[in-house]
Amino acid sequence: MTVIEIGKKAKEITGILGILGSEKKNQGLKSAAKFLLSGEAEILAANEKDLDKAKKSGMNAGLIDRLELTSQRIGAMADGLLSVAALDDPIGEVISMKNRPNGLTIGQKRVPMGVVGIIYEARPNVTADAFGLCFKSGNAVILKGGSDALESNIAIVKWLRKGLSEAGLPEDSIQLITDTDREVTKEFMRLREYVDVLIPRGGAGLIRAVVDNSTIPVIETGTGNCHVFVDETADFNMALDIIFNAKTQRIGVCNACESLVIHRAVAPDFLPLLKERLSLKSVEIRADEEACSIVSDFVPATEEDWGTEYLDYILSLKIVGSIDEAISHINRYSTSHSEAIITSNYANAQRFLNEIDAAAVYVNASTRFTDGYEFGFGAEIGISTQKLHARGPMGLKELTTTKYIIYGNGQVRP
Amino acid sequence: MTVIEIGKKAKEITGILGILGSEKKNQGLKSAAKFLLSGEAEILAANEKDLDKAKKSGMNAGLIDRLELTSQRIGAMADGLLSVAALDDPIGEVISMKNRPNGLTIGQKRVPMGVVGIIYEARPNVTADAFGLCFKSGNAVILKGGSDALESNIAIVKWLRKGLSEAGLPEDSIQLITDTDREVTKEFMRLREYVDVLIPRGGAGLIRAVVDNSTIPVIETGTGNCHVFVDETADFNMALDIIFNAKTQRIGVCNACESLVIHRAVAPDFLPLLKERLSLKSVEIRADEEACSIVSDFVPATEEDWGTEYLDYILSLKIVGSIDEAISHINRYSTSHSEAIITSNYANAQRFLNEIDAAAVYVNASTRFTDGYEFGFGAEIGISTQKLHARGPMGLKELTTTKYIIYGNGQVRP
Repeated sequence: MTVIEIGKKAKEITGILGILGSEKKNQGLKSAAKFLLSGEAEILAANEKDLDKAKKSGMNAGLIDRLELTSQRIGAMADGLLSVAALDDPIGEVISMKNRPNGLTIGQKRVPMGVVGIIYEARPNVTADAFGLCFKSGNAVILKGGSDALESNIAIVKWLRKGLSEAGLPEDSIQLITDTDREVTKEFMRLREYVDVLIPRGGAGLIRAVVDNSTIPVIETGTGNCHVFVDETADFNMALDIIFNAKTQRIGVCNACESLVIHRAVAPDFLPLLKERLSLKSVEIRADEEACSIVSDFVPATEEDWGTEYLDYILSLKIVGSIDEAISHINRYSTSHSEAIITSNYANAQRFLNEIDAAAVYVNASTRFTDGYEFGFGAEIGISTQKLHARGPMGLKELTTTKYIIYGNGQVRP
Repeated sequence: MTVIEIGKKAKEITGILGILGSEKKNQGLKSAAKFLLSGEAEILAANEKDLDKAKKSGMNAGLIDRLELTSQRIGAMADGLLSVAALDDPIGEVISMKNRPNGLTIGQKRVPMGVVGIIYEARPNVTADAFGLCFKSGNAVILKGGSDALESNIAIVKWLRKGLSEAGLPEDSIQLITDTDREVTKEFMRLREYVDVLIPRGGAGLIRAVVDNSTIPVIETGTGNCHVFVDETADFNMALDIIFNAKTQRIGVCNACESLVIHRAVAPDFLPLLKERLSLKSVEIRADEEACSIVSDFVPATEEDWGTEYLDYILSLKIVGSIDEAISHINRYSTSHSEAIITSNYANAQRFLNEIDAAAVYVNASTRFTDGYEFGFGAEIGISTQKLHARGPMGLKELTTTKYIIYGNGQVRP
């Protein structure tokens, strides 16, 4: 099937999906979960093929781990679908309804986007997760997964579609692009006529390729060069706990801390404590000259370090003389993902919240909380780092749009 | 100045603009309005140059009219800025604030986009209008107007900047790209690092070019192939009034009616009345075979007519046997702008509102109401026909984004 045919099929069922109602959608999700479990043997066998190929081609251990499915992981995917079924349905809510002087009543109603495209890497669990969120929000989804996970994805999608079909629901609610030709992916990115939004999930290279090539509106997700600023009034223990958590609790994620900004007044006392705490996880600290003169173990930072998302046990560190300098440094180098201040000063907290330009700005908490589950959305399709449509963690609501509904009794425009 | 330099200058002042506060922004708008008026002679002289050139190159009367400035039109531009000053400031509103079980308080706050780019045709009034809305919503704006209006735009921007500067506010809140080279415009469209959103305002060709070339997130505005469906229970007089209004009150606009869908049961009685009413404005009706057999004056429609936005005294007309057929025809050919049903049947009204996929769906009212002023926003930067970020008329609120602000007291992620 060509990409255009896939697009057409998805578009064709948007009318049905848009008015399915929560009950039927939840039945579909439950049935999909059930069939996913019953397809386990086939899915694991398909995954085995992907793994064999990946190992032969020398894929690194981290990527192999993300690619690998187990009985437990398939169970987690099925549970994920059931959790989404349990979430509130965002569709149909009338956000506002107002009367106009001419007697028109104008309401704004939440409706599905229509067709959502998702381009992602070789993580087969995304296949089921993305389907669940798109389906619950009334959207058809077209998936283009990493080619290293192709066999796994084909098997997963086959069983999800069986589940839908068994529940009397359109199988084409989920479609997978199986052609791994790069030109096909490019064609997908230009399917504006059929796809309403394209969400890339993956590393910076993937996201850049989508942004550069897509004519479909894109929601950029991803990179986080997140800072923690320790001001001159910070509680040292709180600062150490938060930095340790934000840097080391999970290193490969976009909301991990990558850079510290420390007020000059506390640097001589704080930096040795910081070094001690971070050495528990052997974190390398790349610091400016002033910081290096305080702690000799620090590695001198280069200009490049300020803008680097390490996703590793490495941190950059800069000393500043004022909150103004801190804000200006962060706004210059951050990717506008998640930024935190550790302070006990009211005015500094307010200024940081107001003046830092980021999706999530924290006072006295770890940047690791930028997450759909932690924010209480019950789900997450990604974390938007752009300003259009959605900013920060995206749940079901961010997969919807609105339409105006207008009730009249014969009004014409004068 | 290169486009990149312009982008950098805009980005540099976003921090200041974001926290200016309503009072200073309103002072800036009032000062800009005052200086616009005091620059009248210079602006009119510049406009005269544009008009001379346009007439020599044989520009048509409609476009000349849109290009032409008069003392009155400059007055209207200044009044527009004062009206925007009088609107509520959307910035700083906290849309929601919730406590999480771990003690974090998570709020969502409305903030400016940052830098807004606008690409438009030779309509110098857009220059002041767009500036007013962007400035009030805390954004820096970069304008690229049609080259036929270059002299006029340079003069207008000069006086608006004087007004800002006089009020002690950053002149670079409004910048104009004066290089008319197409490559420069393309470069502008790829300035993702500095521009947060790009809004094209103009005809289908301009919008297509922006969508195809931009890497900046785009809000597509514009084309409207708007339908009115007259069902079998419609009040004929109401239907005639609404169709007449929607088609003829102003023909060159995106919310004008371009196509009618008539239920078969009422066609024999309704079509002769329709023909009579629309002949008052000599509207040409391009109809399907069945309709042509009822009214011999109708012109046979081709497949192309169903998808055409005429922006002229022309309408297409199709007869259908059911509301299902009507909905399916409209969803197939509409541009998802504004669609109306004329009915006295409750179930038909509800089905139309639920199942038509468009920015604005009307029951018993003219499609001409899809407009920021008519919707009560007090302003309009355009009408979005895409689903991402904003759908339908866009006012000040649609020029904003949000950021999460999180208040903690030492929380780390377990």
